[in-house]
Amino acid sequence: MKAVWLENNQIKLADVEAPNKPDEALIKIRMAGICSTDLELVKGYYPYTGILGHEFVGEVVSAPDAAWVGQRVVGEINAVCGTCEACLNGRSTHCENRTVLGIADRNGVFAEYTSLPLKNLYRVPDSVPDEQAVFVEPLAAALEIQEQIKLQKTDRVLLIGAGRLGQLIAQTLALTGCDLHVVARSFRAQQLLTARGINVIAEVDIKSQKWDVVIEATGTTDGFTLARRAVRPRGTMVLKSTYKGDMSVNISSIVVDEITVLGSRCGPFEPALRLLETRAVDPSVLISDRYKLNDALKAFEKAAQPGVLKVLLEI
Amino acid sequence: MKAVWLENNQIKLADVEAPNKPDEALIKIRMAGICSTDLELVKGYYPYTGILGHEFVGEVVSAPDAAWVGQRVVGEINAVCGTCEACLNGRSTHCENRTVLGIADRNGVFAEYTSLPLKNLYRVPDSVPDEQAVFVEPLAAALEIQEQIKLQKTDRVLLIGAGRLGQLIAQTLALTGCDLHVVARSFRAQQLLTARGINVIAEVDIKSQKWDVVIEATGTTDGFTLARRAVRPRGTMVLKSTYKGDMSVNISSIVVDEITVLGSRCGPFEPALRLLETRAVDPSVLISDRYKLNDALKAFEKAAQPGVLKVLLEI
Repeated sequence: MKAVWLENNQIKLADVEAPNKPDEALIKIRMAGICSTDLELVKGYYPYTGILGHEFVGEVVSAPDAAWVGQRVVGEINAVCGTCEACLNGRSTHCENRTVLGIADRNGVFAEYTSLPLKNLYRVPDSVPDEQAVFVEPLAAALEIQEQIKLQKTDRVLLIGAGRLGQLIAQTLALTGCDLHVVARSFRAQQLLTARGINVIAEVDIKSQKWDVVIEATGTTDGFTLARRAVRPRGTMVLKSTYKGDMSVNISSIVVDEITVLGSRCGPFEPALRLLETRAVDPSVLISDRYKLNDALKAFEKAAQPGVLKVLLEI
Repeated sequence: MKAVWLENNQIKLADVEAPNKPDEALIKIRMAGICSTDLELVKGYYPYTGILGHEFVGEVVSAPDAAWVGQRVVGEINAVCGTCEACLNGRSTHCENRTVLGIADRNGVFAEYTSLPLKNLYRVPDSVPDEQAVFVEPLAAALEIQEQIKLQKTDRVLLIGAGRLGQLIAQTLALTGCDLHVVARSFRAQQLLTARGINVIAEVDIKSQKWDVVIEATGTTDGFTLARRAVRPRGTMVLKSTYKGDMSVNISSIVVDEITVLGSRCGPFEPALRLLETRAVDPSVLISDRYKLNDALKAFEKAAQPGVLKVLLEI
């Protein structure tokens, strides 16, 4: 089958063997999304060799349980052991023995087929089209914030970054009724937010030590520095992005101001699907472009351009 | 009056005017403790000119409310405005206009007299002797951890550092019934812990990613690095010490492992006094030495020696 293969920081369109794991579902990919993590993997953020991609919607073509065959599904990206301490304590996304779809020791979804354990799959309701369902994984990651902290309705919340993930975070935070403002650099990103009635704020208007919760979704040192300056004493900084290399941080000021710094990664799929079904969020406005699998390299070039939001692969 | 005066990173015994603030209590100092923050201030961690010292027990000699006169008291070190947003939201130790006893814009307690607003004072029960009461401020700082996080009784808790503050943290954490282990380098520190039935653990025996909560109380890069290694995914790192300068931190790993990093500073005085009254904690075992105010410079030299725990000034 055709697939986007990453090896030694180079991607190519390759002809590789289709997955053949009888204890897992074989899934024909319908649509997949390119995420910043994919771009970072190509740059060598983390060593990975194999088929890239982890955001997808597909159709089960064979499975250990025949009831799944023909179902349209999305899939939790962490394939876990179920027996380690993390799994047994409800933290299975941190399974000590996990493989991660298109990220660690498991071939991904920029291909004609992928495979996943049945317990990773979630059926997509008929009312949710592919171009919405393909966003379930990043939407779940956005919802992880609310799994980790209890937002008060009166909280002044600042989101820094309104790219692919930032827009989904903004849409989901807005549903809480909190007092949300978003730093968005590109005009398009600002437009998408204001179209939903979400406040955009300019960096010069951000008052120091004013915000109860600051969410950093740029993955840049500048974003981290701005977040630290903005958060009030005893406030919370949520970090949603990975950063290249180590960062120089003034830890003493975090102690003196009693700041909580919280890392946030993968989230729950079921509420993400429910929010799509009820149309409380609409990720499809983020779609910048669509490419066929054959044009995947062009799709990657496009996705890496500044201001481009979601690039999809139709497979 | 005699006082320990800090100016340009030099301390000296000076003759300075006694405090004269009619709207505050005038307190005759009975006993005071030298804390790591005092030593850091002398090194220039934070610019401060004035009388050093913030841990004390004293007697009110005059006050706007005569009922306080003659009372033996300890005092909350943050003198606050009561009207800023932090004060009005129950975070008065983060008052935007605060002065801090012997630390910021307010003369401290290594002197014959100090002054504080009445609302900062707590009466010391007769059953609590001076050499216990003088520990209320650092004991309150130790209790701040439990104000900030809810320790589960089943939590595996690792405390790194068993110095002046670390010993008080260990004693208070042990009262929760959590599964506590403490990294203590000096033999004396280990002895004090084992005498109370608290487990001491060697660094080589600390398993990576095993601990639910790790408390860093060394203020060193090594301590921070060890804490980061020890804490499990979705675990909590509590930082109880300030650090010199900036530190290089791998933020991505904090995101991927969804770690909570929490700064922790001043804490509540009333429970600290109650724990002394019920003798649930015993800080007086930490006393390494006592000096008269006239010998304060010798006391500072002693306090800076490795392995020395609390040095007191009798005034």
